[in-house]
Amino acid sequence: MVSNALAVGGNNPTAGAPKKACLKVACVGGGQLGRMMALEAPRLNIQMSFLDALGTASPAAQVVPHSRIVQGSLQDAAKINQLVQETVDIDVLTVEIEHINVQALAALEAQGVNVQPSSRVLGIIQDKFVQKSHFEAHGDIPLPPYAATYSVGQIQKAADTLGLPLMLKSRKGGYDGRGNAVLKTNEIAAIEEALTSLGVQDTSAEDLDVYAEGWVDFSMEIAVMVVRSSDGTTTASYPAVNAIQQDSVCRVVLAPARNVSLSTRHVCEALAARAIDSLGAGASGMFGVELFLTKDGKVLVNEIAPRPHNTGHYTQDACAVSQFENHLRGVSGLPLGSTDMVVEAAAMVNVLGAHSNSMEETIRSSDAALSMKKASVHWYGKESCRKGRKMGHINVTANSHSELDDDLAALLAIEGVPVSLLPGGSLKSTPLVGIIMGSQSDLPTMQAAADICKTFSIPYEVDIVSAHRTPEKLMSYSRNAAGRGLRVIIAGAGGAAHLPGMVASMTSLPVIGVPVKTSTLSGVDSLYSIVQMPRGVPVATVAIGNAMNAGLLAVRILSTSRVELRDKMSAYQREMNDTVDGMSAKLLDLGSEEFLAQLENKDQSVNV
Amino acid sequence: MVSNALAVGGNNPTAGAPKKACLKVACVGGGQLGRMMALEAPRLNIQMSFLDALGTASPAAQVVPHSRIVQGSLQDAAKINQLVQETVDIDVLTVEIEHINVQALAALEAQGVNVQPSSRVLGIIQDKFVQKSHFEAHGDIPLPPYAATYSVGQIQKAADTLGLPLMLKSRKGGYDGRGNAVLKTNEIAAIEEALTSLGVQDTSAEDLDVYAEGWVDFSMEIAVMVVRSSDGTTTASYPAVNAIQQDSVCRVVLAPARNVSLSTRHVCEALAARAIDSLGAGASGMFGVELFLTKDGKVLVNEIAPRPHNTGHYTQDACAVSQFENHLRGVSGLPLGSTDMVVEAAAMVNVLGAHSNSMEETIRSSDAALSMKKASVHWYGKESCRKGRKMGHINVTANSHSELDDDLAALLAIEGVPVSLLPGGSLKSTPLVGIIMGSQSDLPTMQAAADICKTFSIPYEVDIVSAHRTPEKLMSYSRNAAGRGLRVIIAGAGGAAHLPGMVASMTSLPVIGVPVKTSTLSGVDSLYSIVQMPRGVPVATVAIGNAMNAGLLAVRILSTSRVELRDKMSAYQREMNDTVDGMSAKLLDLGSEEFLAQLENKDQSVNV
Repeated sequence: MVSNALAVGGNNPTAGAPKKACLKVACVGGGQLGRMMALEAPRLNIQMSFLDALGTASPAAQVVPHSRIVQGSLQDAAKINQLVQETVDIDVLTVEIEHINVQALAALEAQGVNVQPSSRVLGIIQDKFVQKSHFEAHGDIPLPPYAATYSVGQIQKAADTLGLPLMLKSRKGGYDGRGNAVLKTNEIAAIEEALTSLGVQDTSAEDLDVYAEGWVDFSMEIAVMVVRSSDGTTTASYPAVNAIQQDSVCRVVLAPARNVSLSTRHVCEALAARAIDSLGAGASGMFGVELFLTKDGKVLVNEIAPRPHNTGHYTQDACAVSQFENHLRGVSGLPLGSTDMVVEAAAMVNVLGAHSNSMEETIRSSDAALSMKKASVHWYGKESCRKGRKMGHINVTANSHSELDDDLAALLAIEGVPVSLLPGGSLKSTPLVGIIMGSQSDLPTMQAAADICKTFSIPYEVDIVSAHRTPEKLMSYSRNAAGRGLRVIIAGAGGAAHLPGMVASMTSLPVIGVPVKTSTLSGVDSLYSIVQMPRGVPVATVAIGNAMNAGLLAVRILSTSRVELRDKMSAYQREMNDTVDGMSAKLLDLGSEEFLAQLENKDQSVNV
Repeated sequence: MVSNALAVGGNNPTAGAPKKACLKVACVGGGQLGRMMALEAPRLNIQMSFLDALGTASPAAQVVPHSRIVQGSLQDAAKINQLVQETVDIDVLTVEIEHINVQALAALEAQGVNVQPSSRVLGIIQDKFVQKSHFEAHGDIPLPPYAATYSVGQIQKAADTLGLPLMLKSRKGGYDGRGNAVLKTNEIAAIEEALTSLGVQDTSAEDLDVYAEGWVDFSMEIAVMVVRSSDGTTTASYPAVNAIQQDSVCRVVLAPARNVSLSTRHVCEALAARAIDSLGAGASGMFGVELFLTKDGKVLVNEIAPRPHNTGHYTQDACAVSQFENHLRGVSGLPLGSTDMVVEAAAMVNVLGAHSNSMEETIRSSDAALSMKKASVHWYGKESCRKGRKMGHINVTANSHSELDDDLAALLAIEGVPVSLLPGGSLKSTPLVGIIMGSQSDLPTMQAAADICKTFSIPYEVDIVSAHRTPEKLMSYSRNAAGRGLRVIIAGAGGAAHLPGMVASMTSLPVIGVPVKTSTLSGVDSLYSIVQMPRGVPVATVAIGNAMNAGLLAVRILSTSRVELRDKMSAYQREMNDTVDGMSAKLLDLGSEEFLAQLENKDQSVNV
């Protein structure tokens, strides 16, 4: 690191103020989240130090000099103070977990230590009941119904009001489903059993640390990572993702979220940002926002975490700036980085300790990932492997969801995650090319486009959509095409051929029109209907009946962002050249008369 | 890291063999290259240890526990042995620099230590004269002319044979231009001066450690990073890049190389791989291959480095697997990762210590980078800042070269690198859309396409290319379009309108055809000439005279890989909708007769 002699000035660089080259960030907690921050910090000239119960055996301690590790409980004020004292010239104190001693952080703030996010914000989030109450009081944040339940009597009352089943939740300390209990009946015995499972010692107490939530019949769990600058002027959401749980533990994340319309994704992203903004001053760095998408189309805030989050790991390989870098930027007063994805699709699969508790079995998914083209392996360096423990994760990225599904399926199989847990209940490829036609009678013409997609290994679908006979389908197909993952639409129609133009008017994707040959006007009617579009809405029209060229045009369009496809197209063109060269050689060899005779008599032998 | 109790088996996992979860890699040298390896290793469950002269003050030591750092000279056999001994259960010994004690490595190999790349390979590369001789003897590797020069007399002879100016090079230890001296005359005094500048004590000796290279009049320096598996079965090249030097120090890298045809890039990549393969057994991990592109179109191997290289830093943010990860994979016997770029364009700018030697000045470029959308800052954590010292680098990535040029220009200005050093001598944006037409008389029609590109902020160029009057230009334009960076071509032509189809036959890019209206057949001749292409070569045809739609189609095509462009196109379509809605409201309000009267009388006031 740059020596302190060279480092001057405060931690919140503003115009004109002298800038500090090397920032010192101390972090309460040194698990995998701290470790992944520590792996990005050196690039940014940020020097991190950690407090962790495991000390030098913690995941973070594997990647920093041990002089920057303090061993101790995250609840121990003295240890937190020690971390701050040993971080000479500390710029920021942050956290990688919310289950920490908030009072100790408040005391440090009173002494002038810069704590980001602030102890007030951490205090709100740490207690899930306080969190819910905050969101109810601020910022128009839709929530599941919930109730304070300080006693068994109040739990019974909540069950009457909110209905059964009822979710009982510990106010503090829960994670990965721990701290939650489902109450199916209103009987005292069942309530006492649930409380005991939550670790309540005296179920007759009048100050139970639990609260109740009404059952949410959700169709999907969505997560949004939000980053906020320490001065509160900038808040930005990463794309909404599917958070797929198994036994209450996050197993898979799909980014951006599949089986959700673009507008719903934007609703989720805006709601998540609004929720974090409602926390006010001191809400800085990364926040994980877990959302429920209910079966009746509502979006509710489930829980938030004041730090990088498992559902944001995909950002490491899929986004310009990862959640770990953006957390460091946010808490340090540096400009926030872009939250845009730099790839079109990503999936994250958690690597959990195998049933046998053995590393040999646990490493099978990462071994497989090392042979995949765009998979990235992230181990956490945990001291020992236990069944179900989060040992690492694997990110897979691609130009589209369909292009990563094979790798994802292979990883899910090894990790024992049934594809039925995925949104839609399957891993059915969203194709890149949609081939549609007005009538099944157009299929003999249109099949040539499908053949080309197959030749170039491009996923496609073939469907009938009639502008005149199925206008509603025309509209829904066109409106949903981009959101579903289609990138090009090929539409064939004959006569008063309105399909390509109407589709083009209701999507932003490129639409290729194939004029189907007609018996009345030989397809000139189709051609004019398709090509003569008004200004504003283009259709890429190919020759009458030439669906093969429509397929090739789709390949060329996709190749604008896929170098390997460009190479394949060049090879295809060279092959055409060679075929004609071969024919030319044969013609020169045989002479035109003999060639013609062969052509006429046994045209099988001459490949024209 | 995973405890050794759980780790079993050898370091070269093969089918059926028990696999080791955590690998131990010791590295001779702990500078920035070692540090950047160390930042990727933990993800892969690889534990690194380092030998470095700076010990715990070295760049690598900032990112590993100090128990894994040995302080000492890289020439000191005892220290290298200590590194191996202190790396308990060592799997591989590797290097991040070639100026090390090769004999010590050979002795360790004799004791059974796995050294990758092998001491034999390092020995060949370490001595540049031996390196040259090796390539001359093996594998058909084109080289600059060179000669052995053990004495002043032999240097004079070399000057006679190879001509002046002559390059004198130290056989060992050179880097960043150090160890090179240019000889402009054949006089003894000049030779002695050159030898002294190379550190030769006794210029009258008969065993000078220098050799001579003939002057190469190169047009461009190209670099290719190559990775090779330790079993020698797989060798893969990263894309060829421009290596731009200033005062013999690498300042900028552009990936893939600009101002070079695709076929030349492929020649460079194949040659680099062949050069590394010629090194044979023990050539494993990353190799940096520096090439000269001569003014007469030859590609020559300049020098190679047996490790990650400055010209490969762009891979960290631009490729699926970085050179640092691939070095670790290659030397450890893991499957090699993909060398493909996941973005279309990248630039790397070295951050050198400022003239003032001060960090405040040196951090200006990285401060600027933190506010750029797709820039990534990489500091090396060096103890002190000195003028010209490599302190870090910045990677910028984008969907195309033209989309990163603004950010690149800003960084070059701060770093004091004149754009005249870049290939072509300028930062002229390579546009994404090429708009061409057969004649200037088509411009009034075609300008509408340019207007749309401007509206959507897409870089474009407008040119005249006539199929019939400039057939050579037609061919060179079409053949070079993709390599130059164009992604879509819009071609307008009238009458016997051959331009779009001919261009499509000589490029793999999507070509949009605009049939220009003619006086004789109102453009139906143009339409048929353009749309009725034979099978195999598609042209995306739009309506007669409708270049606006050609522009919009180009935007839709580019939007298949640019989400933000998709959003812009949707907004554009909504705006069209609103405009018609407004007109509809006015018509309903005024009634058709009054509306028509207004239309006819003062059509300026009604925006039709």
